[in-house]
Amino acid sequence: MKVFIAGLGLIGGSLALALKDRDLCCEVLGAEADEERASEALRLGLADRIVPFEEGVEEADLTVLATPVDQIPILAIKALNRVKSNQIVIDMGSTKEELCEVISCHAARGRFVATHPMWGTEYSGPKAAVHGAFAGRTVVLCDTTKSDEDATQTIEKLFRALEMPIIYMDAEEHDLHAAYVSHISHITSFALANTVLEKEREDRHIFDLAGGGFESTVRLAKSSSKTWVPILLRNKYNVLDVLREHIHQLQLLRKAIERDDSEELTEMIDRANSIQRIIH
Amino acid sequence: MKVFIAGLGLIGGSLALALKDRDLCCEVLGAEADEERASEALRLGLADRIVPFEEGVEEADLTVLATPVDQIPILAIKALNRVKSNQIVIDMGSTKEELCEVISCHAARGRFVATHPMWGTEYSGPKAAVHGAFAGRTVVLCDTTKSDEDATQTIEKLFRALEMPIIYMDAEEHDLHAAYVSHISHITSFALANTVLEKEREDRHIFDLAGGGFESTVRLAKSSSKTWVPILLRNKYNVLDVLREHIHQLQLLRKAIERDDSEELTEMIDRANSIQRIIH
Repeated sequence: MKVFIAGLGLIGGSLALALKDRDLCCEVLGAEADEERASEALRLGLADRIVPFEEGVEEADLTVLATPVDQIPILAIKALNRVKSNQIVIDMGSTKEELCEVISCHAARGRFVATHPMWGTEYSGPKAAVHGAFAGRTVVLCDTTKSDEDATQTIEKLFRALEMPIIYMDAEEHDLHAAYVSHISHITSFALANTVLEKEREDRHIFDLAGGGFESTVRLAKSSSKTWVPILLRNKYNVLDVLREHIHQLQLLRKAIERDDSEELTEMIDRANSIQRIIH
Repeated sequence: MKVFIAGLGLIGGSLALALKDRDLCCEVLGAEADEERASEALRLGLADRIVPFEEGVEEADLTVLATPVDQIPILAIKALNRVKSNQIVIDMGSTKEELCEVISCHAARGRFVATHPMWGTEYSGPKAAVHGAFAGRTVVLCDTTKSDEDATQTIEKLFRALEMPIIYMDAEEHDLHAAYVSHISHITSFALANTVLEKEREDRHIFDLAGGGFESTVRLAKSSSKTWVPILLRNKYNVLDVLREHIHQLQLLRKAIERDDSEELTEMIDRANSIQRIIH
């Protein structure tokens, strides 16, 4: 299989490595808007050749869109405009509703499979690509009833070969759950970093005391705005909904602390503890 | 050296293991309020003998207070009431201001060294004790001018043997920085867990999608209320101050998302990114 990956950053680059490591493709073509990133990707072995987008789509059996989510809908249309009936296009973005709407009436809609692998790190760009990504993580396939059966099957086989459990959702449902479980975590982490940078004027103290739990909650705050501004804005209504609830939960904790209400605080923390029945 | 540890949970138990692993003591005596935990601690080899608190203090060269912080001031007084001039008492708690005030006029104040090792996990109780804890993490010594020189030196030597860099703060300063860097992270994480548990009614989705960053930000939400309610209430004013700023930062992000203000959002995320110059 010849694979064309548009966007050779954290996600696209790590996919390239995974496909090569497992001998799942004969050649990886890549596209990168930025020239420096393009040569970096080549140097890191993320792609065998850098090609213009249109050429990549035409030549490859599988086109993978792994750019920031604001670029995906247009690239999806451009790719579908060029695919033949034996070719497949997928995306790997974190939001799906707008994308699936934009491509819904395209004559070649069946050749598209919308996917979201639940893997990532706080780093970005070609240098962030790592070996061994994806394995063991869930991948969400969205609106598969709109995809041709053979296209879905090929993609299912591919993700199974990457050892990824597959789940199915419609696009709307996906964006809702992604807001609840992934997008809010990033907002929390950005806000926490800014809080500490605002309040704690001495970097040295942050560094020395970070062992007390700060590192894990703030890790995602290193994530790039290029990736995350589009995600937060494309999933605006779900994100705002869960963000309002999050602020509300913080207010409840604040009020309990103000009142010295150890009973209420205990109850809230014990409730939070129950997350361990789900996340081990 | 004979060491007596009051509280054989995560911190006290891990200290016992570290002292034994490095041959830094000949015998560990322990005290545990709860009988079941006491026999668990013995079974896990965290202590050689369980003794009553008063007996432990009298017999040991070094008494370590590793209980929840609300119990530490009284235990500190009770220990200091019994120590002779060749014995030392330390605590390992996350708040220091109240403790240091309570012991400030005690005749044996010089035998006390207030310490806060910046290490922990989200687990608690004797079973949470692990080998290899503390090494490489900073330990804060507070108000050392109030401690006898020989006592401070002995404790410095002990922490150096555990490979812990030592920093010095007064108690007030410690509580401020601990609120900014450690305590707020726990609040954020508790609130995030409750947000997701509130909004996401299907556990299965949380589990399947958690790869998207949720796990790291919510890890601390497993921390026990027995440990954390006392910390948050004993450090109330600092905690409230930083919590108000955190809510404010979340409101700023919320407003930028509401306004589709990608420029402002980018700026806020880029600012948050700068945390990586401190936390790698």
